[in-house]
Amino acid sequence: MNSFTFYNPVKVVFGRGRINQVQSEAAKLGSRCLIVIGQGSVRKNGILDKCIDMLDAIAVTHTLLQGVQPNPRIEMVYEGIREARKFKADFTLAIGGGSSIDTAKAIAAGVMYDGDPWDFYTMKAEVAKALPIMVLLTVAATGSEMNSISVIQNDSTRQKIRAQGHPMFPAVSILDPELTKTLPLDYTAYASVDIISHVLEGYFTSGDEHTPLQDGFTESVVRSVISGTYALMKDPADIEARSTMMWASSLALSGFTTAGIGPFRFENHLIEHALSAYHDIPHGAGLSIVMPAWMKENKKNLMHRFEKFARNVFHANTADDAIEKLEGFFREINAPTSLSHYKISNFKELAENIMECAPTRGLVLQREYVERILERAK
Amino acid sequence: MNSFTFYNPVKVVFGRGRINQVQSEAAKLGSRCLIVIGQGSVRKNGILDKCIDMLDAIAVTHTLLQGVQPNPRIEMVYEGIREARKFKADFTLAIGGGSSIDTAKAIAAGVMYDGDPWDFYTMKAEVAKALPIMVLLTVAATGSEMNSISVIQNDSTRQKIRAQGHPMFPAVSILDPELTKTLPLDYTAYASVDIISHVLEGYFTSGDEHTPLQDGFTESVVRSVISGTYALMKDPADIEARSTMMWASSLALSGFTTAGIGPFRFENHLIEHALSAYHDIPHGAGLSIVMPAWMKENKKNLMHRFEKFARNVFHANTADDAIEKLEGFFREINAPTSLSHYKISNFKELAENIMECAPTRGLVLQREYVERILERAK
Repeated sequence: MNSFTFYNPVKVVFGRGRINQVQSEAAKLGSRCLIVIGQGSVRKNGILDKCIDMLDAIAVTHTLLQGVQPNPRIEMVYEGIREARKFKADFTLAIGGGSSIDTAKAIAAGVMYDGDPWDFYTMKAEVAKALPIMVLLTVAATGSEMNSISVIQNDSTRQKIRAQGHPMFPAVSILDPELTKTLPLDYTAYASVDIISHVLEGYFTSGDEHTPLQDGFTESVVRSVISGTYALMKDPADIEARSTMMWASSLALSGFTTAGIGPFRFENHLIEHALSAYHDIPHGAGLSIVMPAWMKENKKNLMHRFEKFARNVFHANTADDAIEKLEGFFREINAPTSLSHYKISNFKELAENIMECAPTRGLVLQREYVERILERAK
Repeated sequence: MNSFTFYNPVKVVFGRGRINQVQSEAAKLGSRCLIVIGQGSVRKNGILDKCIDMLDAIAVTHTLLQGVQPNPRIEMVYEGIREARKFKADFTLAIGGGSSIDTAKAIAAGVMYDGDPWDFYTMKAEVAKALPIMVLLTVAATGSEMNSISVIQNDSTRQKIRAQGHPMFPAVSILDPELTKTLPLDYTAYASVDIISHVLEGYFTSGDEHTPLQDGFTESVVRSVISGTYALMKDPADIEARSTMMWASSLALSGFTTAGIGPFRFENHLIEHALSAYHDIPHGAGLSIVMPAWMKENKKNLMHRFEKFARNVFHANTADDAIEKLEGFFREINAPTSLSHYKISNFKELAENIMECAPTRGLVLQREYVERILERAK
């Protein structure tokens, strides 16, 4: 087992109907709130109004930043920082999924920083402090609600990269599975891929045979998410399956299930982020394309791990079986498994971008290796 | 899945040689330290001196409270509070296992409280604040290093009961598996039983069929601890097995593996605490006696759970098989499985004590039910 430092102070408030706790939790954080939302679904389904009513009831004044895109952009962060400063916000409330949360985190940190918040992503500056961050989760996928990571895209530099820092841990995340019941099936599938990828990025980056505890945690996440996703394909309102997916998403990148394994290389994410940066495809859809290709390229060096994965997740025997079963699962839930699905062919540009962004994750990669993975994914 | 609130802000510093981080972590907590230790093993093996050298090097002055017993007593808490006040300690450092940690927690909270700290245990008062608590773990069993629980025994009232409160979360817990390599085999076995009991108290208190994620976590803890214990019976210095046991012990009662399952009744612990209070036996040894009896009494109502447990932990089929395998494991590692091992026969007194202490855990039990379990354990 590897050495590690584990720290995760997020207060998680989980359960059906817990949306009502927005009121009591917000009251603890301040009296002036910047609300951050995406492209309007929380407006249409009434969740935003419900939150506003609760804030009004406790005399928390608020201003709204709306229009955060999937693959959230740095421009929106700049806009949010201007708004938060003008409004003198003393905390942020993200209502949505990873994009809204990551944007709210960047704003919360950026407000307290004199320079360009993009510095946090290019590792020119550390996040020293941030406004308190509150989350009401409506898409369970990225795990951002229970970690200190923010991933932001910069179109001018064609980079989709991440920052991390303790002040960006949400103070409180409210996880109400009822709110995810109406998530469309395609995004439910992409969420499923994302959760699975988070635990497997750890599971498959080392050949350490002495991590039975963590391996079991990871296998439990993968098995539970696969069966939960199948259940949701039949009945998208299955609240037990939504609950399992929601808690799995939060744990998968919280550090809990994976402490002591790795080191995490997060190569699948690195490669996928290039796809998103160039083609603006959903993160989970990019991952279902990249992961089987990455696995085929890496299976030889991690044969024991793949065989263990095959046995404990799929009751199968070989590495090839395991990869085939996982890819088959992606296909069954209509997550794409090939770059051709999006007619992506700019392999050279993508490989260059991946090579450029690798150092922001502390990775040193061979260009030929990256090209082979893209080739396998075509 | 049940609703839950999850919060665990403990910073865990894990790995071989991490004892050296006592210095940098202590520097963050204060300049006057009350060190709490047990009955002298950390003095003999040099761990205490090493810590004192590190504190001296950063000019943290310290005073020592030594002699904490297994099944730690409230008198020692009173003594520690007097000493901490006299010394004007601004943080506590527990070096040891659950007894030292639970005592340090009680002292840290008691120093900040005007009344009798026993009030925290009898639920007459809540823990409102506490001195910062630092832990250097040398016995991986109770999980106290990663939760806000303290269990203390009061001989004058014959109660061994628990208090819980956020201020009693350790600020930092240093988990260096090297320090546990010399733990004797009998206590290694009792630790193993204790860890397993912590996850199973959740697993077996509800018939909820919709917790695949948490069930998998629990099963992974049990499987890993069983195989780790077997490895240690062969080679007590097996550092990988010690690492797995150490991280398993911390997670097992951290809330993480069990959030969303339950409700926890902790009946095995309630019953065991009566055994310890009357007969001063090791907690884990009491649990290996109580658990099989409790399981035999409860299997009928939880048949599906027991069958799942049998399949996923022991590759067995029936509830009876599962209980037999677990009891067999206890026997193999020389953990007692019968009250006769300690010549315990005061069933009437024990049952009365259990009935009296049950309300401190929010439990309502039938006396006949308790007596049947004791009878099965005889």
